[in-house]
Amino acid sequence: MGELVKVAVDAMGGDFAPVEPVKGAVEAVNENQGIFVYLVGKEDVVNAELSKYTYPKDRIQVVHASQVIETGEPPVSAIRGKKDSSIVVSMNMIRHGEADAFVSSGSTGAVLVGGQVIVGRVKGVERPPLAPLIPTEKGASLLIDCGANVDARASHLAQFAAMGSIYMEQVIGVKNPRVAIVNIGMEEEKGNALVKETFPLLKANKNINFIGSIEARDIPKGTADVIVCEAFVGNVILKLYEGVGATLIKKVKSGMMSTMRSKIGALLVKPALKTTLKSFDSSQYGGAPLLGLKGLVVKTHGSSKALEFKNSILQCIQFKNGQISEKIKEHIADNVAPAEER
Amino acid sequence: MGELVKVAVDAMGGDFAPVEPVKGAVEAVNENQGIFVYLVGKEDVVNAELSKYTYPKDRIQVVHASQVIETGEPPVSAIRGKKDSSIVVSMNMIRHGEADAFVSSGSTGAVLVGGQVIVGRVKGVERPPLAPLIPTEKGASLLIDCGANVDARASHLAQFAAMGSIYMEQVIGVKNPRVAIVNIGMEEEKGNALVKETFPLLKANKNINFIGSIEARDIPKGTADVIVCEAFVGNVILKLYEGVGATLIKKVKSGMMSTMRSKIGALLVKPALKTTLKSFDSSQYGGAPLLGLKGLVVKTHGSSKALEFKNSILQCIQFKNGQISEKIKEHIADNVAPAEER
Repeated sequence: MGELVKVAVDAMGGDFAPVEPVKGAVEAVNENQGIFVYLVGKEDVVNAELSKYTYPKDRIQVVHASQVIETGEPPVSAIRGKKDSSIVVSMNMIRHGEADAFVSSGSTGAVLVGGQVIVGRVKGVERPPLAPLIPTEKGASLLIDCGANVDARASHLAQFAAMGSIYMEQVIGVKNPRVAIVNIGMEEEKGNALVKETFPLLKANKNINFIGSIEARDIPKGTADVIVCEAFVGNVILKLYEGVGATLIKKVKSGMMSTMRSKIGALLVKPALKTTLKSFDSSQYGGAPLLGLKGLVVKTHGSSKALEFKNSILQCIQFKNGQISEKIKEHIADNVAPAEER
Repeated sequence: MGELVKVAVDAMGGDFAPVEPVKGAVEAVNENQGIFVYLVGKEDVVNAELSKYTYPKDRIQVVHASQVIETGEPPVSAIRGKKDSSIVVSMNMIRHGEADAFVSSGSTGAVLVGGQVIVGRVKGVERPPLAPLIPTEKGASLLIDCGANVDARASHLAQFAAMGSIYMEQVIGVKNPRVAIVNIGMEEEKGNALVKETFPLLKANKNINFIGSIEARDIPKGTADVIVCEAFVGNVILKLYEGVGATLIKKVKSGMMSTMRSKIGALLVKPALKTTLKSFDSSQYGGAPLLGLKGLVVKTHGSSKALEFKNSILQCIQFKNGQISEKIKEHIADNVAPAEER
């Protein structure tokens, strides 16, 4: 066994803290001997929760942080003002080399701002994108950027494509991942000003497998592995995925309950259906990495349960062993450096 | 019975022309005595198709157009070059007052360009948006703009909101429709530059019932009746709706077929499920109007069947009787005129 991968977990963030992050941390260390978890939050609260479980005591340590950043708080002033919050304390641990990664389901804004100002960007990276995996018919695709940088420029999107490609290959294990840009048509001349400016930059990058435009209707089919878009569009895609899915499942359920005949059928169908629909549930993939930082920062859903925390923690192993930050640094130095000099 | 509503139908446009547009036209005149249809296209082809049906001969007339604009053709040169195409001939009929409306499932680009340059905009309207109805849990919402104007400005979006509101109230019959802008958070300070600039314009318009931002995840819940967004985002929403829906239905079907037990259940569930899922099928609503023109132009899906043509044709009655173009003209003159003077 090599060196332990040290993950700081925000024990105070999200709708179900501290119960679910603590449970997820325990499950992660019990499942994988290569993981060490720092549970960051109010000591007494976290210890009380942790005392319910059996786990290797030498691989979970509670780190006290007296403050909590709430979801509604303006991110910049929260990060500046609450120096002893679980988010700021955890990020400082990455900065000082005490932790390799940070997993939080707390305020997205605070995690994004903290990632940039405390953990810091890899040299040459203009904007760090948030990149969740979304379920498709064939498995999962990386949606990048998904809320970190609205009104991004073409050079930013070109870097997103490169970083997403490295992540998908090294962490998720997709060989030569297909990279596509979200567009409103398949032809090269289609699109808005941003897409038209980005398209040739992606085409010119010989280190990525750029396959051209992808229309939104083809995203769920899994025709691309890395789906590049500006953050506003990415956020709409992520949330609509969730919304249409929830509404359709509700429709299917109410349809099954509408007649006596269908109610009997529903009982027979239910177990098989549950298994299939689970493959279309994004929580199985863990959280979304914020790429291009000097350490790994993973944002999980606000409503994350233990499974998502566990998967997010385990994901940090591939990230560290794959040397993602180092590879992003090399790639950016090789390819996108000229953009910096403009 | 009042005056007949005269609808020109593109008999050559779409994947299933001339079969489906001709069938839809016949069904429309058979169902509603207030409709008169001009079937525009190659005379011999259309007549051959039409001869298969029984219908009131005095309410369908074939109008010859020797050319067809293909989907792949660059729209501007197609409209300029093919003066005797079904699209150009039909639009000239609106321009000259011979038809009230035009229904086409041909090239979207050509329909948009033709609408602007041949039918012409209502005075004061800066950009005519394409506004399809999308299914929700509660019925349907109008998504505006959905592909006509990428890189739109805030003043355009403000007009879309007003036009969409008039259409939803007068044609679809929703009293005091709730208008929302697509955003990546609910707070007023969230959003990209365009949304931040548009928000106060919508808030200031006392003639619409503006309820603020809507996140993409809430669109399928039907929490707003008129959903305002820029065309690139609208196009992504429309197509992702379709894509996620198709993939999930496929998953449900394969889940049902995965075990012997579930196969039996599927037989019992199927009829009830079919009825429920039909309520989430957008083709029942007919096509998308291109608003803000001097006459009505309706774009239906390229893959439209007779039902969608029929519904699109019947929709023209409310549009004409509701005097939508006149109401848009009045509203624009009242409210958005200052934007013109900038």
